[in-house]
Amino acid sequence: MVSKGQQSRERIIREAAALFNVRGYAGTAMSDIIDAVNIQKGGIYRHFDSKEAIMLAAFDYAMQQRIEQVEQTVRQGETALDRLGAICDSFTTLIESVELPGGCPILNAAIESDDLYPPLRAKVQAGLDTLRAVIQQVVADGKSSGELHPFANGDVVASLLISACEGGLMMSRLYADSLHLQRAVEHLRAYFESLRA
Amino acid sequence: MVSKGQQSRERIIREAAALFNVRGYAGTAMSDIIDAVNIQKGGIYRHFDSKEAIMLAAFDYAMQQRIEQVEQTVRQGETALDRLGAICDSFTTLIESVELPGGCPILNAAIESDDLYPPLRAKVQAGLDTLRAVIQQVVADGKSSGELHPFANGDVVASLLISACEGGLMMSRLYADSLHLQRAVEHLRAYFESLRA
Repeated sequence: MVSKGQQSRERIIREAAALFNVRGYAGTAMSDIIDAVNIQKGGIYRHFDSKEAIMLAAFDYAMQQRIEQVEQTVRQGETALDRLGAICDSFTTLIESVELPGGCPILNAAIESDDLYPPLRAKVQAGLDTLRAVIQQVVADGKSSGELHPFANGDVVASLLISACEGGLMMSRLYADSLHLQRAVEHLRAYFESLRA
Repeated sequence: MVSKGQQSRERIIREAAALFNVRGYAGTAMSDIIDAVNIQKGGIYRHFDSKEAIMLAAFDYAMQQRIEQVEQTVRQGETALDRLGAICDSFTTLIESVELPGGCPILNAAIESDDLYPPLRAKVQAGLDTLRAVIQQVVADGKSSGELHPFANGDVVASLLISACEGGLMMSRLYADSLHLQRAVEHLRAYFESLRA
């Protein structure tokens, strides 16, 4: 059974993750979190020492949601090409997501954490490492099964997929128009075809 | 002759543009700008009503620098393929720039302006429109001269170039490793080759 304290901790993390993703880490004050959670100031400090501690826990939570989404997407695909295409498509759900509004938590935190708070930056790197590893595994499996060419390089595929989708997501969110990300995804699908054995 | 007042206004904008690009718009306080410019508080309010007014002027300044850099790059290329490749290369200078530290001002402001300040968001859209127009013109000229295929679509080229380079820049800055952006640029150069007539 989850204790009441644990429930309250999880609610703080969930609300803070949404606020940070929309307004940014610097743009969200402790008072915004306290208002969103509807908790007393003392209540929040029972769970977290500082805003920085909430930032780290909230990024972990958002990252875990995103990685679960990508892994579920990968499990539904039958071939490596299906799976790579489905990972691209998962970025389109981030243009306007209800569960995690504000776009991609990796992109947002990467841009903001340059100079903000080094422990957050280390977590963003680790989060992007995890996403890259999922893509690399899809490519490795596709090579083992003979679907992909032996020369397909999973690390290069990961760089290109993530670059084009994160940049396309930025454009599509800026213009509130899915067109730019769609173009990136279509282009990537054609590129994935070129990796067939 | 530039008046002393004008000089001081320009210095505020220049310093603020660097601070906003590194620390973010929400992460930079008026007091940070006053410290960086080494001006009295009253002095800054003689030039700008509010932090928001400085944000808009600083973004305009950063955007103008970036567009001038891209346009200079374009003038140096002799063919459309040279020019498109050179625009990609100009993103690599943003990984660690001395003139404008903190990465790409469009990417940074696009990510942060979602929910921050609508007039800034409108300026970011206009800035990205300008960059897209430069790329579209290169493609149009390349089609007129017979270098590029009549079916080359300048707006699609702009979406793909900007998506891949902005996303690659995010990755390369996060890891402090130019590899990811280099991969995006190499991939784009091969794609541009496919547009030859």
